[in-house]
Amino acid sequence: MDDSELDGLVAWWEAANYLTVAQIYLRDNPLLREPLRAEHIKPRLLGHWGTSPALSLVYAQLNRLIRRTDAQLLNVTGPGHGGPAIVANAYLEGSWSEVYPEVGRDEAGLLRLVRQFSTPGGIPSHVSVPVPGSIHEGGELGYALVHAFGAAFDNPDLIVACTVGDGEAETGPLEGSWKGTRFLDPRRDGAVLPILNLNEAKISGPTVLGRVPDEDVHELLHAHGWAPVEIAGDDPREVHAQFAQALDTAYDTIRAIQAEARAGAHGRPASAAGPRWPALILRTPKGWTGPKVVDGKQVEGTFRAHQVPLANVRDNPDHLAQLETWMRSYRPHERFDEHGTLVPELARLAPTGDHRLGSTPHANGGRLLKALDLPDYGAYAIDVPAPATVTAESTRKLGELLRDLFSRTETSRDFRLFCPDETNSNRLGAVFEVAHRELEQARPDDEAVGPGGRVMEVLSEHLCQGWLEGYLLTGRHGMFATYEAFAMVSASMAIQHTKWLEAARGLEWRAPVASLNVLLTSTCWRNDHNGFSHQGPGLIDTMISMSGDVVRVYLPPDANCLLSTADHCLRSRDYVNLIVIDKQPELQYLTLEQAKAHCAAGAGIWEWAGSEHPGDEPDVVLACIGDVPTLETIAAAWLLRTHVPELRVRVVNVVDLMALSPPDVHPHGFDRDRFVALFGEQTEVITAFHGYARALHQLLHGRPGAPRFHVHGFAEQGTTTTPFDMVVLNEMSRYHLVLDALRRTRRVPAGSDALERYCETQLTRHHAYVREHLEDMPEVRDWVWTEPAPAA
Amino acid sequence: MDDSELDGLVAWWEAANYLTVAQIYLRDNPLLREPLRAEHIKPRLLGHWGTSPALSLVYAQLNRLIRRTDAQLLNVTGPGHGGPAIVANAYLEGSWSEVYPEVGRDEAGLLRLVRQFSTPGGIPSHVSVPVPGSIHEGGELGYALVHAFGAAFDNPDLIVACTVGDGEAETGPLEGSWKGTRFLDPRRDGAVLPILNLNEAKISGPTVLGRVPDEDVHELLHAHGWAPVEIAGDDPREVHAQFAQALDTAYDTIRAIQAEARAGAHGRPASAAGPRWPALILRTPKGWTGPKVVDGKQVEGTFRAHQVPLANVRDNPDHLAQLETWMRSYRPHERFDEHGTLVPELARLAPTGDHRLGSTPHANGGRLLKALDLPDYGAYAIDVPAPATVTAESTRKLGELLRDLFSRTETSRDFRLFCPDETNSNRLGAVFEVAHRELEQARPDDEAVGPGGRVMEVLSEHLCQGWLEGYLLTGRHGMFATYEAFAMVSASMAIQHTKWLEAARGLEWRAPVASLNVLLTSTCWRNDHNGFSHQGPGLIDTMISMSGDVVRVYLPPDANCLLSTADHCLRSRDYVNLIVIDKQPELQYLTLEQAKAHCAAGAGIWEWAGSEHPGDEPDVVLACIGDVPTLETIAAAWLLRTHVPELRVRVVNVVDLMALSPPDVHPHGFDRDRFVALFGEQTEVITAFHGYARALHQLLHGRPGAPRFHVHGFAEQGTTTTPFDMVVLNEMSRYHLVLDALRRTRRVPAGSDALERYCETQLTRHHAYVREHLEDMPEVRDWVWTEPAPAA
Repeated sequence: MDDSELDGLVAWWEAANYLTVAQIYLRDNPLLREPLRAEHIKPRLLGHWGTSPALSLVYAQLNRLIRRTDAQLLNVTGPGHGGPAIVANAYLEGSWSEVYPEVGRDEAGLLRLVRQFSTPGGIPSHVSVPVPGSIHEGGELGYALVHAFGAAFDNPDLIVACTVGDGEAETGPLEGSWKGTRFLDPRRDGAVLPILNLNEAKISGPTVLGRVPDEDVHELLHAHGWAPVEIAGDDPREVHAQFAQALDTAYDTIRAIQAEARAGAHGRPASAAGPRWPALILRTPKGWTGPKVVDGKQVEGTFRAHQVPLANVRDNPDHLAQLETWMRSYRPHERFDEHGTLVPELARLAPTGDHRLGSTPHANGGRLLKALDLPDYGAYAIDVPAPATVTAESTRKLGELLRDLFSRTETSRDFRLFCPDETNSNRLGAVFEVAHRELEQARPDDEAVGPGGRVMEVLSEHLCQGWLEGYLLTGRHGMFATYEAFAMVSASMAIQHTKWLEAARGLEWRAPVASLNVLLTSTCWRNDHNGFSHQGPGLIDTMISMSGDVVRVYLPPDANCLLSTADHCLRSRDYVNLIVIDKQPELQYLTLEQAKAHCAAGAGIWEWAGSEHPGDEPDVVLACIGDVPTLETIAAAWLLRTHVPELRVRVVNVVDLMALSPPDVHPHGFDRDRFVALFGEQTEVITAFHGYARALHQLLHGRPGAPRFHVHGFAEQGTTTTPFDMVVLNEMSRYHLVLDALRRTRRVPAGSDALERYCETQLTRHHAYVREHLEDMPEVRDWVWTEPAPAA
Repeated sequence: MDDSELDGLVAWWEAANYLTVAQIYLRDNPLLREPLRAEHIKPRLLGHWGTSPALSLVYAQLNRLIRRTDAQLLNVTGPGHGGPAIVANAYLEGSWSEVYPEVGRDEAGLLRLVRQFSTPGGIPSHVSVPVPGSIHEGGELGYALVHAFGAAFDNPDLIVACTVGDGEAETGPLEGSWKGTRFLDPRRDGAVLPILNLNEAKISGPTVLGRVPDEDVHELLHAHGWAPVEIAGDDPREVHAQFAQALDTAYDTIRAIQAEARAGAHGRPASAAGPRWPALILRTPKGWTGPKVVDGKQVEGTFRAHQVPLANVRDNPDHLAQLETWMRSYRPHERFDEHGTLVPELARLAPTGDHRLGSTPHANGGRLLKALDLPDYGAYAIDVPAPATVTAESTRKLGELLRDLFSRTETSRDFRLFCPDETNSNRLGAVFEVAHRELEQARPDDEAVGPGGRVMEVLSEHLCQGWLEGYLLTGRHGMFATYEAFAMVSASMAIQHTKWLEAARGLEWRAPVASLNVLLTSTCWRNDHNGFSHQGPGLIDTMISMSGDVVRVYLPPDANCLLSTADHCLRSRDYVNLIVIDKQPELQYLTLEQAKAHCAAGAGIWEWAGSEHPGDEPDVVLACIGDVPTLETIAAAWLLRTHVPELRVRVVNVVDLMALSPPDVHPHGFDRDRFVALFGEQTEVITAFHGYARALHQLLHGRPGAPRFHVHGFAEQGTTTTPFDMVVLNEMSRYHLVLDALRRTRRVPAGSDALERYCETQLTRHHAYVREHLEDMPEVRDWVWTEPAPAA
């Protein structure tokens, strides 16, 4: 690199540093045309200076690499509150002004730029949805690297640079992300280039990696399949020169690894190690080039530089002077011309068009998204000659659909399935007929394992969810299938992704992306054998409080409804779809055509299950939401119509949970008329719900006669027991539903008393049966249901 | 080690393996007194054989170490579904029969032992609460090592052995836990001895660490401060001999590190590395000593051995014969005598009394727990001459209390504070006057950092929560203070801990432990400046669906209420207490005495804030839950009583959220009379709630007139804005509350119309104000509230 190129790098970097400080501090006088005065300073100082110089260094260097190589690069920034640095660079390269024309490339635009930063009506102080070029929100820390890997999968030409702060590096999800190398296929995937920025401090203390011996940091990365190279120093020119050389070498290494693999020369023996991917360690002072000492205390290079190194600028003339000196050290008048526009010598250092980091379509994945080539889901339908006569493992049919989806995307490679290690356990194993698990190292005894796989099995919900998020936000499709209870492990990630989508909806320039589809299976009701720790439908609670613009929750009662639901979800955009259904053999209710109509409606009356008189109001409504609740409700309705034939019972099944919400709360909420057509206005509604019983009331509030909904659902009662005991423990059994229905119905038709006694007897017998279980050890079929579910 | 000692180790191990297989398979004939027949086999086969032999090897070896050294050992078992192995060992050593006398040490007891395993009415298949000697539930994977460190802190004589499976090792939280070494003080803490069991496979595929080069595994541990030693092989005697030697060496190393540190010889320079703690890598075949080949496929050493290696034993005579051969290979008749009792040569290999792994009081921490020496919280009270006249940062007072608590526990060392990196940010910084952050490596520029600290700052909610759980379950006290939104990161851990406590309550032998206290601060309402990703009260949703036996949620409105609440929580046992309050300056309402009474009641009428006529029913009730909701409610009440003096307004403040639940749902639920005394039966209740607005309806369902509660709360509306704009966006502002109250009140007293117009105008002005904010940049004080909150 010659001197002038180095000059350019440093000059760009100083311009970015200038704009970073300007955003943090200034409400006026953005180019320091006049001496800095207290009234130019914002009333509240936000944003983090500490990490910003390193982020701008990375940005400037990546720009150079792009110009030199024409490579496709995506920049993921972990140190989120370094937002002003990324905003500054996106502004300098012109991307910002293209999506936000009101922030033009002149002095008026600069004023707008500094005023909008972390200001009411403006933008957040961290890298966030409004930042062009970002697929990663720097709020909740830990997911930068997992998002980077998700972006790299099936993007063979892309290099994802990912800056990881040594604060974020302490989180579990980030520590778990380093091993992404083991799942990266150099033939078909792109590359991830991590840049670990060791500035050695967090908000008020040291970081772990900042204090361990240097060789431990290198070892850590090396142990995870990386070949780290360290760039360290505090002299800007030297560090820039070192970094440029390291980056060039890293780029060459990446391309060599890929070329070797893609030339078919990658025939290493199965037991040998995979490639070591390059990684950079950047050890630079926290708050580098900022105030060194403030009020006699060292600031640069310490935790004191983490946020705003000069805090009382308005009231303290010394601080104000120090700020002005600091800002002028970046020579703004050499960087911007008399109109406030970046000088041409610097402007030409940015890549052009979509090659700019702020303009790459990979960071606005909807621009690259193609509709999935989905098979006709009717081909996988179960033949249901009559309701409740056929038993099947519902998710197995979904597995067949996904198998053919893998076949149809063999070339496009724009679909992946993510699952801790339970694809087979969740009955989705048909996918292995045509696809396999991605893993660098396979052995002959393995089944469906090897490089180039698109089934991502890693025992980490964080990695599954995060990889999928990165994959979706770069314009592809996928599904995350997981045990219901352990879906809470990555609940906070689902929240953050929901917030991302909600914010993205407000930005016209962000094109819609494929929805995040989460299949929750191995549910609370059928984790009877695994016990209490495996029983928890909590993700429903979490998601129903999120924005109705984004979240949908479906509880298909059987296989045909699951197929219809999955097809809909896989075609949808910008949603987080929860699909909740168990994997165990279960009764099937609807034909394909019935399922289509039922799922399209979201909820409906199942006349075959009830005993209504046409035109009359029913005496009682039995509502059911979810597969096991539907089974118990169908059985309860059968008991009622068999033993109390005069009672008019209506059965309502709900697939689309949010249909129960008032329409002003969720767009899927039925209007009043549709709601009343199903549930009446005053009829008692005995409701069986898959999730936590009382959570349903937060949906139903505001509905006509909300108190008449009596919800039986998960009540946090669980243990190692039988499926039927689970519904008894939680008082959702057919007997509980019948008893509740009889007691809440005003009329007492013939047979009511006898049926009530029968149900009580059955429950008494059941309790005795469980007590005696250890002695008896009855057969498995008796573990499941104490009486067969009836035909319609 | 001589041959006879080695013989003993192997014999114990084989007895444990035998009982493991017996638990998985047998319902009868537990000692194979007669030839194995199909009817002896359980109807459903559960439990995981794959990991079990390694777990029993560890147990046998730890027994030998204890007998040899008399050391205090605690055994944490990560591979959870290896439950039958741990149960087998606890049974062999006698601990099991002591807490469960019905499972005696004879043949009848053996029958009970095998029948109870993973059977309805019995115990789960994974290591769980009923297992004596366990502080760790092996359900949701990832927390074994973090629990082990929590147990070791401030337990200088304790060594915590922690077996980590290579499946669990893929999780983020486990990967994040290795660095616990950096927070372990050899002078004052005990030791953690990880045993990484590489059996190289998960349920249906390979593990990551099972396939990477061996040197990468060693490097990974070394990078985190460990000195790993590998034991590998498939010959039992050889592996046992190797392991014994490695364990002896590890023990000597641990004691040497501790002795050196405790002798004061630990004066290493600040920049040098800390000690490398020993760690063991145990590479043994999956399903070791089980069936090698089944139906022509390799099973031992592959994923096929993960669960039950022989599946169709009842229907397949070959499998049955294979099972019998396998079981008899462990020579049960040499291990147990004619009564079914373990032979004395083996029985004497177990440690005795509380030294047994299944009987150590460290795993039943309530036995060691001492009440905290709490200062009188009244000493930190804020002087409140009149309600709503004084402003303070409420959490700062809690920080002072915690400071003195640290002083008072200087010797007992049985209290720690856990916090990502926000102790100062959360205004708890007073603790640093007497305590400091634990970190091995400190530098002169640090503030309050160094070895021996009891403030645990690590940027990982998983580590904070997990360390605290391990600390509590071994009989100590603590608090986890965290940003409200990011508390969701470890929500699943909070769920699992709640389930643990719920299950422990059902076991008389488990003594109560100190509660898990979580302070949620930097709340959604006051993360205005950080934006949408930082705004989320979701942990409340998660926890209110958990068991009412365990969960309590407190929302103190001011500092004195916070002090009273914290004092209560720190004294409590076996609960998970959420305390929700912001850290920013906020109005103070109650004197110390008033706060004491108010918090003891859980909720009450604030007469000074309302305009009731004694004896009359109010026209409207304004209810508030949480600090910001209280502020807006007090202001709304002031507007109403100032402008519509005839309107009878009652103000109710709720501190104990669960008081709103019906008493059959939560024990804190007020009975009907108390509820009606506060809220009437028909009066409209305009409710301002800190959390997600609609979540409150799941508490209120079943209350008299539940639909009359109109909840204003967090509605997932957020951005980078002002605190006042947050309450406007979410329609919880004083103006929204007034408008709702006026519109829902039947009477229209004089002034109503004018006040309605005033509120509408204020909201219109506010919206304009926010739109113009970027241009105006008003002063900070104007960012906060558009009008001052009134005095009472």
